[in-house]
Amino acid sequence: MLLPAIEARFACRRFVSGETPDAGLLAELIEAGRLAPSAFGLEPWRFVPVVEPVQRAAVARACFDQPAAETAGAFIVVIALVDALDPDSDYVRNRFEAEARGGDTAPVYEAYRAFYRAETMASWACGQCNFAVAHMLLQAAHTGWGSCPIGGFDAVRMSSALALSRAEVPAVAIALGRCAHSAAERLRKPI
Amino acid sequence: MLLPAIEARFACRRFVSGETPDAGLLAELIEAGRLAPSAFGLEPWRFVPVVEPVQRAAVARACFDQPAAETAGAFIVVIALVDALDPDSDYVRNRFEAEARGGDTAPVYEAYRAFYRAETMASWACGQCNFAVAHMLLQAAHTGWGSCPIGGFDAVRMSSALALSRAEVPAVAIALGRCAHSAAERLRKPI
Repeated sequence: MLLPAIEARFACRRFVSGETPDAGLLAELIEAGRLAPSAFGLEPWRFVPVVEPVQRAAVARACFDQPAAETAGAFIVVIALVDALDPDSDYVRNRFEAEARGGDTAPVYEAYRAFYRAETMASWACGQCNFAVAHMLLQAAHTGWGSCPIGGFDAVRMSSALALSRAEVPAVAIALGRCAHSAAERLRKPI
Repeated sequence: MLLPAIEARFACRRFVSGETPDAGLLAELIEAGRLAPSAFGLEPWRFVPVVEPVQRAAVARACFDQPAAETAGAFIVVIALVDALDPDSDYVRNRFEAEARGGDTAPVYEAYRAFYRAETMASWACGQCNFAVAHMLLQAAHTGWGSCPIGGFDAVRMSSALALSRAEVPAVAIALGRCAHSAAERLRKPI
């Protein structure tokens, strides 16, 4: 059943202290994210699980110690691979050759080069990461864990906490744990 | 079970002709999309179901008549609300007042104004739409229907086919139908 997971998911603002998702759960979430779709099949992301307390505190600080971050038992930080998206990169060549399954890669290159010239790639790659984030949030809800996607963080501190290269941009930090409160009344625009 | 839906979802390249998703399925998908998360709770989207044959053909043409579009029984086109995201818009005020549940909206306005100055809002809003798209693709897979998210289209033609205002940007067209082929071997980067 999918709608129950969709309905169970909400942004948890505070987690129960000491309840840490184990490695099995993190692996399951990462698998859910890995299977997400992406434009041109580029999967322009990398998932960084953060469990170790010192690193976890550094990530929480990058999130301005907002309660969901400060109380999270773990994070999965989704990183957008930005420089890798250059049409002439090995990364793009490898993805397109895999997608073409031995066929001609010229048509996809032609479409992609035009797209690449027109788009703001860092913003675009972060937006693509949302496909993977949605999968991971639903998988967490499905297994009874709470989550909070955090997009408002200090990118310089986050990059430093995760030792990212300049070619990578942190997109979303998913805070994880057992939620310490029930869902507030859901607010959505009407259909 | 969620992973089965995640595993069952793939980008269908050709649909069975004459198999048209009914209004109930489209409503179910739109409900799944409506419950998706969004930054600042802004839900910067609108979902346009397209079933009527003349409009369907116009949307397919905007998608360069690629086979998934040409053979789709229906579309849900996800529209990014871009002008609505101005911090001084009624739209943003209504969303923030709802989120604050009677509390002070000043802190979220302060954070959002800084964000709004720094971001390319059209690209950002399209990226936010991917949360809703991911939910709808999974809901389609869960109910046994095929889907193909299409981001490569002629935006002018798409806007014209849907009679969009200049304040709205088409983000993703989700082609829907019974898939006419089985999934190709899945390509993903290793963990």
